[in-house]
Amino acid sequence: MDKNFKIALSEFIDFTESEWLLFSESLIKKHYKKGEYFLKEGDLCNYVGFIDKGLFSFFYLIDGGQHIRGFFFLNDFISNYQCFLLNNKSKAYIQALEDCSVTMIHKDEINMLYEKLTKLHKLSKIIVENLYLDVSEKYESFFLKTAEERYLELIINRPKVTQGIPQYMLASYIGVTPEGLNRIKSAFPKNNLHFITQINAWI
Amino acid sequence: MDKNFKIALSEFIDFTESEWLLFSESLIKKHYKKGEYFLKEGDLCNYVGFIDKGLFSFFYLIDGGQHIRGFFFLNDFISNYQCFLLNNKSKAYIQALEDCSVTMIHKDEINMLYEKLTKLHKLSKIIVENLYLDVSEKYESFFLKTAEERYLELIINRPKVTQGIPQYMLASYIGVTPEGLNRIKSAFPKNNLHFITQINAWI
Repeated sequence: MDKNFKIALSEFIDFTESEWLLFSESLIKKHYKKGEYFLKEGDLCNYVGFIDKGLFSFFYLIDGGQHIRGFFFLNDFISNYQCFLLNNKSKAYIQALEDCSVTMIHKDEINMLYEKLTKLHKLSKIIVENLYLDVSEKYESFFLKTAEERYLELIINRPKVTQGIPQYMLASYIGVTPEGLNRIKSAFPKNNLHFITQINAWI
Repeated sequence: MDKNFKIALSEFIDFTESEWLLFSESLIKKHYKKGEYFLKEGDLCNYVGFIDKGLFSFFYLIDGGQHIRGFFFLNDFISNYQCFLLNNKSKAYIQALEDCSVTMIHKDEINMLYEKLTKLHKLSKIIVENLYLDVSEKYESFFLKTAEERYLELIINRPKVTQGIPQYMLASYIGVTPEGLNRIKSAFPKNNLHFITQINAWI
């Protein structure tokens, strides 16, 4: 089992060594080359994963154009959890933006483990709470925040990782054209961001 | 404890009678007159509830105008769960659209009960999974569905209950003007909805 994965999960759950062993028997490790898909439109999503290495985009393909709706970063849980829960075919794509490694578990294994490992309910609850918070904040930001605020939020929360994301994807994510993103970036040059982070911490 | 509440929860959780008793000691019942608020902008949200009677709207107030983002119906769980989890002040309002009754539990009681009643993790997981699916579907529908499709979805899923919702709220919810909603409604008269429901079941 990847060390990062165990450390990350230990924040949420106090498995004993024998419980870790039981849990780890259900895990598989998968590698994705840059450009490969974790999930495509029309696929079932039977896995939930944890990103040990790399970065993925989550997008819809509408009239041939990528509409980026999110990113999965290092140490994030990754899934189209909506399809995972409902057994629906995915309407979205999840694609590796660089070479990635993911520790994964199949839903059948999770359902089987719930019987033997009741603590897993707590872990699943925490994972879905985090997914819920993520999508709720995105949904709310569509009504309450400007593109500038969405850009600042992403840059402040993920200052280093977003350097690996192509600019046209960042623009799509915050809902502006690449030219619009350039205008926002020139209004908030990098050396001002530290100052903005400080202001955010005060207010 | 309200009978509906126990029946609804029994679908998800197999409490013994003594566990029900322990759980029910933490519940309170609250009544809201039409127009009263379950939650206002700036409030902390320390409760999660279950609607025994009535109907609530969930909205943001932007430039003085109500932007309806959802409804809580009979037998739904009700909360601004984002604020509940993060201890944030609410940016949204939750208001009774008619006289309502809610069975509620305070977050401190839930946290205390987790120790004595480990099955509660499973119940919380199922509640947050449902909230997650609800907000994910709304978020996805903004990119993938037209106002007509959002209207049909609401009418088909909640044919009777939506009769209690003022038309300007339904219009705001699906993202059109009241005049736009009238145009959609005249394109899909009520006696065609049964046919549309059938088509949806086939495809």
